[in-house]
Amino acid sequence: MTTTSLTGALLIGARDVTRDTTFVARRAVDGSALDIAFSCATPDDIRNACALADAAFDTYRHTSLSARATFLDAVATEIEALGEPLIERAHAESGLPVARLTGERGRTMGQLRMFASLLREGRCMDPRIDPALPDRKPMSRPDLRQIRMAVGPVAVFGASNFPLAFSAAGGDTASALAAGCPVVVRAHPAHPGTSELMGRAIRAAITRCTLPEGVFSLIGGPDYAIGATLVQDPAIMAVGYTGSRQGGLALGKIAAARPVPVPVYAEMSSINPVYLLPAALKADAETLGASFVVSLTMGAGQFCTNPGLILGVAGPDFDRFVAAAKAALETAPAPTMLTSGIRSAYEAGVERLAARPGIRALGRGPRGEDSACQAALFETDATTFAADPVMKEEIFGSCSLIVACPDIATLRTLTEALEGQLTATLHMKEADLEDARGLLPVLERKVGRILANAWPTGVEVCSAMVHGGPFPATSDPRTTSVGTGAIERFLRPVCYQDIPQALLPVGLRDGNQPPA
Amino acid sequence: MTTTSLTGALLIGARDVTRDTTFVARRAVDGSALDIAFSCATPDDIRNACALADAAFDTYRHTSLSARATFLDAVATEIEALGEPLIERAHAESGLPVARLTGERGRTMGQLRMFASLLREGRCMDPRIDPALPDRKPMSRPDLRQIRMAVGPVAVFGASNFPLAFSAAGGDTASALAAGCPVVVRAHPAHPGTSELMGRAIRAAITRCTLPEGVFSLIGGPDYAIGATLVQDPAIMAVGYTGSRQGGLALGKIAAARPVPVPVYAEMSSINPVYLLPAALKADAETLGASFVVSLTMGAGQFCTNPGLILGVAGPDFDRFVAAAKAALETAPAPTMLTSGIRSAYEAGVERLAARPGIRALGRGPRGEDSACQAALFETDATTFAADPVMKEEIFGSCSLIVACPDIATLRTLTEALEGQLTATLHMKEADLEDARGLLPVLERKVGRILANAWPTGVEVCSAMVHGGPFPATSDPRTTSVGTGAIERFLRPVCYQDIPQALLPVGLRDGNQPPA
Repeated sequence: MTTTSLTGALLIGARDVTRDTTFVARRAVDGSALDIAFSCATPDDIRNACALADAAFDTYRHTSLSARATFLDAVATEIEALGEPLIERAHAESGLPVARLTGERGRTMGQLRMFASLLREGRCMDPRIDPALPDRKPMSRPDLRQIRMAVGPVAVFGASNFPLAFSAAGGDTASALAAGCPVVVRAHPAHPGTSELMGRAIRAAITRCTLPEGVFSLIGGPDYAIGATLVQDPAIMAVGYTGSRQGGLALGKIAAARPVPVPVYAEMSSINPVYLLPAALKADAETLGASFVVSLTMGAGQFCTNPGLILGVAGPDFDRFVAAAKAALETAPAPTMLTSGIRSAYEAGVERLAARPGIRALGRGPRGEDSACQAALFETDATTFAADPVMKEEIFGSCSLIVACPDIATLRTLTEALEGQLTATLHMKEADLEDARGLLPVLERKVGRILANAWPTGVEVCSAMVHGGPFPATSDPRTTSVGTGAIERFLRPVCYQDIPQALLPVGLRDGNQPPA
Repeated sequence: MTTTSLTGALLIGARDVTRDTTFVARRAVDGSALDIAFSCATPDDIRNACALADAAFDTYRHTSLSARATFLDAVATEIEALGEPLIERAHAESGLPVARLTGERGRTMGQLRMFASLLREGRCMDPRIDPALPDRKPMSRPDLRQIRMAVGPVAVFGASNFPLAFSAAGGDTASALAAGCPVVVRAHPAHPGTSELMGRAIRAAITRCTLPEGVFSLIGGPDYAIGATLVQDPAIMAVGYTGSRQGGLALGKIAAARPVPVPVYAEMSSINPVYLLPAALKADAETLGASFVVSLTMGAGQFCTNPGLILGVAGPDFDRFVAAAKAALETAPAPTMLTSGIRSAYEAGVERLAARPGIRALGRGPRGEDSACQAALFETDATTFAADPVMKEEIFGSCSLIVACPDIATLRTLTEALEGQLTATLHMKEADLEDARGLLPVLERKVGRILANAWPTGVEVCSAMVHGGPFPATSDPRTTSVGTGAIERFLRPVCYQDIPQALLPVGLRDGNQPPA
């Protein structure tokens, strides 16, 4: 196995581009500078990457489904070949534990291979044929055929919290490449080395599969203007983004103001309400309290699906839950956060929440090192919660708010006033069925995924997954960013009327349709 | 058969609401006032309609697919029961010929029944089940199920040019109702009587099927603010619009500025380029010239797919085409236009185009009555066309521009500079195959439907149709507003994780999936 070395270069198609203006990555654990100076992309670099993507588009989108499947498998293989240096670098840059990153690498390769399988199965391009009806009265019907094609080059923004699975070669990149779209990745500045390694794996697969160099480029730098310039480039036809609400909304505005507006698929903000229904609480209050804190503090709470809001009916069982959660909090882990900026924002968010009238601090977890996330737990009543918009805002990290409600009806009322969410979770027993039934219609209108008797952290990559939801959880609730459905974001239908066989896309020619 | 009478009322759920402020419809042919004073909707009326739609949503979206299919069929039946008074009123208001409107009524009923069939077939909600894998290592997989649900109440804007098929009970309404969305229609002020009749047909079907009254409301009035207020209502979750670019962009801005932004599916502006390839031109120049003018002047050119741009290689065959088109123009029909405003805008557009430097007027069709569309044909060269953005703008009506190009390569170059289009048409023979092949990649990126050897007017309602296309043809090229795919605009996926069978949507329960 050859070791892929970091150079700090931008990957503009097949070319390594270095610039005088550079930045460094910092160890999450202590903020110290890591080796390698990373080049900052200039506007010309961004333009060049987009021009290469545009030039590659027609060739790449016309590759066969099986050729693209081979390519995606090759990317997975190349990631595997990066070996432990990838995990070591990702650990240094993100502070995430090696075991977690090893799992995340598996997920990253898994989702590339999932899209390869989806392509081989063949139906994702949804070919439709309405054959000609020459004898129809009063008018004959022409031969009409529809298939979905790639929308064009896609800009992908690496996410801070999944340096592997939602970054350079992550879910957005995998689904866009599967659709037939070249990708320009804007690397997250918190893990430029991880991004370069992953980018080099994609580039190696491009070479191995003799695809056009413009199928993938990687640009980086700490400046926000880099992302803005990328989204403004006329070659870019869609954008994938996972990050803050502020960032997602800013990119959406930029994309909408273009001469040709393009969609931004932004996954932004969610507090993921959890409902503790009475029978579940009665049976399992202590277990639920403990498992809640495990979910809350996992990965320093740096998950889009972190349980930031717990709702239940006040009473002795509820008190048992709160007591168990408080107790678990005392010995909860205090993992390193992704960046010092994220940690400062977390602490500021906790302080802001603590200062709200009517809130009660239940406690903090162990303090840990300077870079650690000190978990925080708060409690309030339904009336206070209903009146305070700040209590409904996401605090990225291990912070959660428990709301004691007077009755089940209040659970529903509070839910109606929530913004859109990625998930909602029902802890329930058989006896809670009718209460759950009453909540479901509200939840279905508010969230992308409804869970029973689990915690929302942990997103399965599969066909039925929806990692999405109404605004502001995402900018587009008609889509998902995890699972096979993610490919649909980067496809659009085209119809061919009476077009000769020789000119039809291969998948629309007679006899070329996949089995149902 | 009972005759449905016009009252001029707003249809707010089951209630007829009349207001003191009224407006009248005018005969397209002479601008004279028709009978009946139509109430103008107040902001309260709009709010009430939206509130009823919101209240009806949970019940309506939970109706079974077969119940919704029965409802859509009932709407078609009730439209049929309106009988000839519908056609007479639509003819008076729109000026469209009785034969055309009779055909359009058939299409309107046909698309309602098509969505009924789609629902009965059952797969359009795309149920997906990933069963639990309790023994999977390192982690078990939960039971994950996904189905698509209605997005919420939908606002539909009636289109001026299809008073039946794209108005109160038209394609947007049919696809939204099929998806499970209540609909609030903003009637086009040019045909309020036609809209009321169609609205009453929907209301009768609602009563017959004992659905909640809020499933449908109809509001109207000449004021633009009515549409703006409707789109701003928080209950509205999506918007369907067919009309001008200016109108579509304005609604899009309003929808994007809401606290919760919602999608506007606007079908706006297209000049529908037609390519006359050399062998086709050589073989059929005269026939093509004549059939072009038939397509151009059909329905006074008031089609979204009107052929507004003809491109070919200059030479004797091209001259034969131009001569034949000129000759056909002299005896072309001069049909009544939809409104005097549309006619003024058409004449202003023709005048503006005629004044462009480097343009040559080939002639006008017969003048006809004051309300008629006098067809107009212009010619220019490729260089002039390339440099002038005005020549690339849609003029709604029977106006077209013929561009003589020096060679085939120029056809491609000019196409690359065009905006997004609904259609592109290739007139071609076997010998033109390679030229067509060279154009296709550009066309695929620019348009929603590519036709060979036909004219773009005439949109089949079927599974494979795409009536859509890149901006500004539509606001969202990932969709179609005609054909079964139109339902997808009003659906979003929801995932259920380990949810008990009794709480799952019916279509996700074990054994309830439709056959593949």
